[in-house]
Parts: sequence; structure tokens; C-alpha cells
Amino acid sequence: MKKVAIGIDIGGTKTAIGIVDREGHIIARDSIATPSHGDAKKYVVELSKIIKRLINSVKLSGREIEVLGIGIGAPNGNYYKGTIEQANNLSFKGVVPFVKLFKKVFPEFKNIILTNDANAATIGEMIYGNAKGMKNFIMYTLGTGVGCGLVVNGELVYGHDGFAGECGHNILIPEGRLCACGGKGHLEAYCSASGIKRTAFEIMVRDNAKNSLLSNKSFQELDSKIIFEAAKKGDKVALETFEQTGKWLGIALANSVHHTSPEAIFLFGGPVEAGDYIFKPTIKSMEENLLPVFRNKIKVLPSKLKMSDVAIVGASALVWKEITN
Amino acid sequence: MKKVAIGIDIGGTKTAIGIVDREGHIIARDSIATPSHGDAKKYVVELSKIIKRLINSVKLSGREIEVLGIGIGAPNGNYYKGTIEQANNLSFKGVVPFVKLFKKVFPEFKNIILTNDANAATIGEMIYGNAKGMKNFIMYTLGTGVGCGLVVNGELVYGHDGFAGECGHNILIPEGRLCACGGKGHLEAYCSASGIKRTAFEIMVRDNAKNSLLSNKSFQELDSKIIFEAAKKGDKVALETFEQTGKWLGIALANSVHHTSPEAIFLFGGPVEAGDYIFKPTIKSMEENLLPVFRNKIKVLPSKLKMSDVAIVGASALVWKEITN
Repeated sequence: MKKVAIGIDIGGTKTAIGIVDREGHIIARDSIATPSHGDAKKYVVELSKIIKRLINSVKLSGREIEVLGIGIGAPNGNYYKGTIEQANNLSFKGVVPFVKLFKKVFPEFKNIILTNDANAATIGEMIYGNAKGMKNFIMYTLGTGVGCGLVVNGELVYGHDGFAGECGHNILIPEGRLCACGGKGHLEAYCSASGIKRTAFEIMVRDNAKNSLLSNKSFQELDSKIIFEAAKKGDKVALETFEQTGKWLGIALANSVHHTSPEAIFLFGGPVEAGDYIFKPTIKSMEENLLPVFRNKIKVLPSKLKMSDVAIVGASALVWKEITN
Repeated sequence: MKKVAIGIDIGGTKTAIGIVDREGHIIARDSIATPSHGDAKKYVVELSKIIKRLINSVKLSGREIEVLGIGIGAPNGNYYKGTIEQANNLSFKGVVPFVKLFKKVFPEFKNIILTNDANAATIGEMIYGNAKGMKNFIMYTLGTGVGCGLVVNGELVYGHDGFAGECGHNILIPEGRLCACGGKGHLEAYCSASGIKRTAFEIMVRDNAKNSLLSNKSFQELDSKIIFEAAKKGDKVALETFEQTGKWLGIALANSVHHTSPEAIFLFGGPVEAGDYIFKPTIKSMEENLLPVFRNKIKVLPSKLKMSDVAIVGASALVWKEITN
């Protein structure tokens, strides 16, 4: 009998579901559209049908599994209360008690746990990834936004109200770029995928760089992957974009190190695929901005989790973590 | 038999020693010059004589006490290793194993604990002060420098190497003012006592404010107390100095909240004596810079610890904390 955990990722448009083993392999997966009708009860009932079907499909294929619980990752997910609260990009309004709703349709599962997506990814790294055995580390996820999870003394930091780890909204440049949340100068406005694009345009504007490989892309078209490809071809704007992004990210990492003094910081997400182009300037800047007592000690590493799997795998990790505690 | 703990504060010029009861009252105290000879062994032997004399003096006065241990607060103190490492303003060079040296002269004490001064103050707040019963809080100490201690899940965050909580050296303004540590743009360069003085001069320079009450003080003379007195008299430069300091400090507090989501943040130190002049703009700026999910939740409060006692009392709190664990 193979022990498995269900991972659910509730995204703005899609809800992904997977059955995950202790090694982090997804042995079955499915997805549905996250509804726009705002009726959480109805949505959970729909979801439960898909989950039951998925479990049965695995069993019918001859594999014996024991489901240990359900982990849910969602924007503005609150670990303590099991709620999703005021999530901008979901249709459910106010404070929705998702764990309670899930417990109604799955009374047989003792472990049903919810947290936000970046926290789930962080626990994924701890359970399945490169942070195995680490007691103190930080994970930064660079994507549409910048997410963050902190682990202290072997536990994810949820804080007093369950919302800790929102370092993407730390002020990097006072009165700087507008952030998607409405704030100004946040890390996310500089080091998310779209932040990187903004930097590339900033540099093109400054240098009037009409010969850059990036200069034939619209503001909508350009993304961090195109910038990476241009950097590989030696494009000056693209290279400087990564240099500058690393400088900013390094400051943010140094500030986080000063808070919790981790053993390692893991980076995850699209822009991280650029490898040395982003890691080298980030590490250089972090080291320069660290108090000497922290220098040459903190590892900055890529996440071991796969981009395509992290949402499901991270959510499922919540179950294994809960069982270990 | 009254249970007590010894608190020792190793400062750049003075070493203060106190016998402290469970309520945080210092029932006896003494001090010696911190030596410049750099011989840690000799210094600890000297210290041990004073401590023994102090214990005897209390006993001779007819009070029966049981000493439970020794807590030591020192710059660059490492909790895990019991060492002081590369402390700039002490004569002891390299990595000095203070706890080991103390255990030799006090084999009867099981609990001999060392950490840095800001961490000691933070535990002081938790044991004796306004943070009693809080599981998640942060303390900022504003003095010659800016110190910081973070408590997560009821435990002080020491981090992987024992040096966590150096938020005074977080980058507030990239490429900004020179910090005492040699870095640039650190919080400490803006919100320490001398940072506040620098702000006052910056404003006087900008406005050519020769009629300000602060304009007859030299750069050496001016301090946050004088600025406070001038603010009470309505001096524009002094008032704007506190406004601006609060704006900066509020950004730093918001960034810390985004990390660990505390129930409260305590402020301690000379500049904090300015009360509303510093608290009001700090809270306003923090709220403005917080992600909405954290707004109107985090208490920003003055420390309950006395300025004159905090070093000894904080250090002694390490012993009570250790016994509780």
C-alpha cells in the first residue's frame, strides 16, 4: 500500500489537482477551471468529485494507495484558520473557510491543510527538494509576483496571523515603481517576471537602444525568457537587465538574511531559468550588502522543484509536513 | 529562598553586572571597566571575583538567594557557540569562547548563556516586559546603533549560525548614507541616535535654517534629546526630523512584518523617549507600507524595560528563558 497525499493548487483561472507520493512524484493529475461564480460550496463539491474520480482511477489501474490527506495552496491562504481571505484574483469574496468545506466532503481525512502558494512551495522544497534536512532557509519564488517562505528551526514561519512571508512586497526603492498591489517600490515591481521586463525597457529608454535584440518586442510581448535568449547572444540590454535585477534581488536577500540568518536561500521560477545570468549578480550583490559576519556563508541555490509541478507538489507537501510534526 | 539570575553586559568601555529577580528587579549591581588588554581569561577571572563578592554582599545583608545561572549580553555574541566573534569595539580578538571560560570559574552553574545585546533585550521584553505571553513579536532598539530581535513561535530567532536579527544593517536606501559598519544606506544610518542627528542637519542644510533651535549646536553636540526638546517648542526642523525618521523607520518595520508577521513591534532606546513625535509618523508610515492584509493589526509599542537597566536585565532574562524551555 503506497502512501500518498493530494495536492490542490487554486489559481486565478485553473485549479490543479494531483496525487503525490512521498518522493514528490505526481502519480495522477487533473484540473478544472476555477469558477467565476463565487460560490465556494458548489466549487468544493465539484472538486471533491474530481478528486474521488482521480483516486479511483489510480486504484482501478491496479496500484494500491492510501491517501493521507489534502494540502491546498491558494493566494492569501491562511494556515491557522484554513481560510482564503480577500484574494484579489479569485471570485470568492471575503473570508472563505475552505478547510471546513473540504472536511465536510472528506470527513475521512484527518489532515486537510491550506496555506498560500509560496509557503506551499517552500514546504515542497523542504520535503522533496534541496532543503531536505535544513532547519533554517528561505525560498523566493519569482513569477508573476514575488513570493517568499521562511523556515526557522525546522518550521515554516506563519506568524501571528498566518500570513508571514510576504517579502515580495518589501520596499526596495522608497517611492519607486508601482507594484501590482498598489504599493510603491516593492521588490515584486523589480524582480518579478514583469519587473524584469520593465527593467529591460528602462535600459532601452535610457540608452535609446534601437539595435537591441529586445527592441522589436512590444511591452506586452517581452518576457524574461526572451531576455534570457538575447543575453545568451550577448545583447547588451539583456545582459544589463540581469545584472541590474541581480543587484536588486541581492539587496532583498541580504535584508532577509539579516532577519533570520538562514543556511541557504532557494530561488524558484521562470527568471531563475536564466541560471548564472541571474545567480551571479544576485550573489555578488547579496555578499556586498551583507554584514561581514554573514559573508561567504549563505548558499544561494536553485530550487529542485519542477516548474510544471510545484503548485501541486508544494500543496501536497503540507500533508507530509503535518504528519511529521 | 529567592531565585535570582546574574546578568552581565559586556560593553565597549564598561562591564555591568547585576543580580536580578524573576520580576526583573535588580537587587544588587556592580561594574568594572572592560579591559583593553585583550586577555579574555584574565578578564573572566576578575569578573568572577566581582560576581562572587556581589552574591556574598546580598547574602550578608540577610537575603537568602539561589543563583540559577548567568546570562551574558555582548556585541557579536553567538548563542549557539557561546562565543564573542570579531567584535569591533572590544579588545578581545577573533573568536573568544566566553561561555567555556565562565564555566571554568563557575562549575556550579548549569545555565551560562550568551547572546548579543539586542537579542538579550528582546528576551528581557518577553520575560519581564510588555511582550509577556506573546509568541510572535519583534523588538527594535534605537541607540548608538539599531539592534533587532525577532521572536517566532515563542522562541528567539538565532538562525543557522546564531547571528540572526541584524536588521539595523538592512538596506533602507540603496547607495545611501554611510553606516558605522562601512555599508551604505543601512537603517542604522537613518534611525539610530546619530542617524536622527544627521537628518536634522540634512534638513537645516536644505532649508538654510539658521533660525532653528538646533542651529547653534555643533555636529558633535547635537543629539536626539536636544531635538526632542526643540520639537516640544515647535521647532520646524526638529519636528520634520522626527517625521522623516518615522517615515524611514515605518518602512523598515513594514519590511519586517512582511517577513514574520508579528503580533507587536516594540521600540526601545533614547530616541523612543520622544513618544508621539516618533511613534505617530512611524506607525503612519508602517501602515502605508504594509500589504493590506497586515494593516491595522500590528501593535507598535514602547518597551517596558528601563534604559538604565536593560543591558543587565536583558542578559539575566536569558537564564529564565533557558529554564522555561
